[in-house]
Amino acid sequence: MIKKYLMTPGPTQIPPEVLLAGAQPIVHHRTAAYSAIFSRVLENLKHVYQTENDVLCFTSSGTGAMESAVVNLLSPGDEVLIASCGKFGERWRDLAGVYGLVHDYLEFEWGRPVEPEDIEKALRSSANYKAVFVTHSETSTGAVNDMQAIGAIVEDSDAVLVADSISGMGSAELKTDAWQVDVVVAGSQKALMTPPGLAFASVSDKAWAMAERSKLPKYYFDWRKARKALAAADPQTPYTPAVSLIAGLDAALALIREEGLEKLFHRHRVMGRACREAVKAMGLELFSPDDDRSSSVTAVRVPEKIDDKQLRRLTRDKYGVQLAGGQGPISGKIFRVGHCGYYNYSDIVVALSAMELALRELGFQVDPGAGTARAEQIFGEEGI
Amino acid sequence: MIKKYLMTPGPTQIPPEVLLAGAQPIVHHRTAAYSAIFSRVLENLKHVYQTENDVLCFTSSGTGAMESAVVNLLSPGDEVLIASCGKFGERWRDLAGVYGLVHDYLEFEWGRPVEPEDIEKALRSSANYKAVFVTHSETSTGAVNDMQAIGAIVEDSDAVLVADSISGMGSAELKTDAWQVDVVVAGSQKALMTPPGLAFASVSDKAWAMAERSKLPKYYFDWRKARKALAAADPQTPYTPAVSLIAGLDAALALIREEGLEKLFHRHRVMGRACREAVKAMGLELFSPDDDRSSSVTAVRVPEKIDDKQLRRLTRDKYGVQLAGGQGPISGKIFRVGHCGYYNYSDIVVALSAMELALRELGFQVDPGAGTARAEQIFGEEGI
Repeated sequence: MIKKYLMTPGPTQIPPEVLLAGAQPIVHHRTAAYSAIFSRVLENLKHVYQTENDVLCFTSSGTGAMESAVVNLLSPGDEVLIASCGKFGERWRDLAGVYGLVHDYLEFEWGRPVEPEDIEKALRSSANYKAVFVTHSETSTGAVNDMQAIGAIVEDSDAVLVADSISGMGSAELKTDAWQVDVVVAGSQKALMTPPGLAFASVSDKAWAMAERSKLPKYYFDWRKARKALAAADPQTPYTPAVSLIAGLDAALALIREEGLEKLFHRHRVMGRACREAVKAMGLELFSPDDDRSSSVTAVRVPEKIDDKQLRRLTRDKYGVQLAGGQGPISGKIFRVGHCGYYNYSDIVVALSAMELALRELGFQVDPGAGTARAEQIFGEEGI
Repeated sequence: MIKKYLMTPGPTQIPPEVLLAGAQPIVHHRTAAYSAIFSRVLENLKHVYQTENDVLCFTSSGTGAMESAVVNLLSPGDEVLIASCGKFGERWRDLAGVYGLVHDYLEFEWGRPVEPEDIEKALRSSANYKAVFVTHSETSTGAVNDMQAIGAIVEDSDAVLVADSISGMGSAELKTDAWQVDVVVAGSQKALMTPPGLAFASVSDKAWAMAERSKLPKYYFDWRKARKALAAADPQTPYTPAVSLIAGLDAALALIREEGLEKLFHRHRVMGRACREAVKAMGLELFSPDDDRSSSVTAVRVPEKIDDKQLRRLTRDKYGVQLAGGQGPISGKIFRVGHCGYYNYSDIVVALSAMELALRELGFQVDPGAGTARAEQIFGEEGI
């Protein structure tokens, strides 16, 4: 009998309330009954986003909403700046390439955050950037970028600031309006505690003004059509939405409202800190930055002589704990513990325990409970 | 106590097995466990599609998969032919416009099918068409086009034939390979008995050859990336799929396999015929063609002096039966009964009964049971 703990940074565990809400009979999407649910979802999304901007909703993975930002803001040949510190930063570059944008690419070491000063320098060197693309929470490394600092820099330029907060929204705080982030992309399947399939983009007035002039082709991801459908007396989407996922998201956002944003972000910050401290106490080396922003994912270097795949297979198949591996150039070199969403101290303790058991089994020297003991200290200090 | 009957042509009713499969804990999408489910889904989709071609799977509405066909097959300035007989035929034209294609638009009266001969004439008049876009099942009117005849015509040209079978796949038979339909687009939320959020596109060798040369920009809907992910030892999608909907679809396709394609299409054909005959017996006029292909949707003209919205509000709020209205230029002039998917004789009888009750209440002269009696005759004759 193996109990399963999905500890990956997306998809994540789903609360039973959300699973059951998604299993209700379908409500037709062109009815007032659906619009009542959808309106509540939009209002609660704005609350988590900490924004008064429109939040548009697409049936797609987060990548779809990223593409929507590119094709709705820009025109062929536009110049953009991309600051990247991992796999998902590279995605902005790939999108810019596909759509014929002139793009400057600031590349930072994987496992480190972006340096806001470098963005400032780049913006000073050219007045032509129409947009700056940044990853808020870099799922591939655990690094979370300082959007407040970056927002303050980009605000003074003509460029719009676009952030991928797919694994950040709801776990690593992002104050969309206060920090002047024009477009924030998120997805249902991380801290929003809903199955994958929905993606979101908030759009500021500055971004709407740019969208009005955009000439790149778009249809399914057309923001203006989405805004028009939202503005109806009964808010809708232009195309059939994933009704059952919207119903699930409605239940998930109700749980978030009940917890409150302060406790929500505190819980994630504490889980991140407990995880990082425990990893160090186990004699492992962190890959993600050891700062309090890293509250969505903890990335850990695979110790020498340990095979990453063997380790993760053992934690999963024997101990029920599914961890994530490394992606791209760091495949095999790190493993990741996701803790964004429906997670609390208990999941962290189980994940650490499985890591200890499996590592010992593979010959790595770690005292039983070294990590869990340290995590308990943190939970005791910080409250859970 | 009102029992609810969703009788719209998408979203449709969902079998409890499918709802519960979608409510299971999330299986991570980069695991062999997920690929086992996904492989089975792909194999069963091919069975319903009656194809050996690749079937690509996207997390989006059906419109997303339609857009994928345009951007993956074509290059700016390519000439295409569009044959339209309703709202969803217009969507091909809109997509062609957005992507800068030179498009000839054959428009047929709403409520009538496309004339294959006109496609033949157009193909004879120009050898430059790269693609022919047709709606298989025109959800807005109930018309189902003769894809066998159209396939035989387009086969002899250099153009690929692309069909929107979003409301047809699994209810109005389409023999993808035998009828030489190069690309067939479908969605999860109609006859495939799954909540909305998944869309599919089958791709023939002729279409792949064209896709290799296509220059329109694409990212999220990139077919070649999707094919590469499918070809892995553990088949995947390039981006996080809607895992819970895939689990639901797996359960739905198992039900379809259990029923068998012959019974599946017989059931739909009989529901369509029973609905049409009953509507006529009630003294109403059909809007959808009165032919055996019209097995997904029955469209009915709203009688004079009856207000469409009032009628549908009454069937829904008092009798629990949700019907669909008309779209675009025929809004208010027709209503539609959807019967593609998880429907059988019992739903048809209830829908007809609600129509009779509501129509009588609104002053329309119809004998109680006139429609249901006629439907029962058909079910008796044809078997259910």
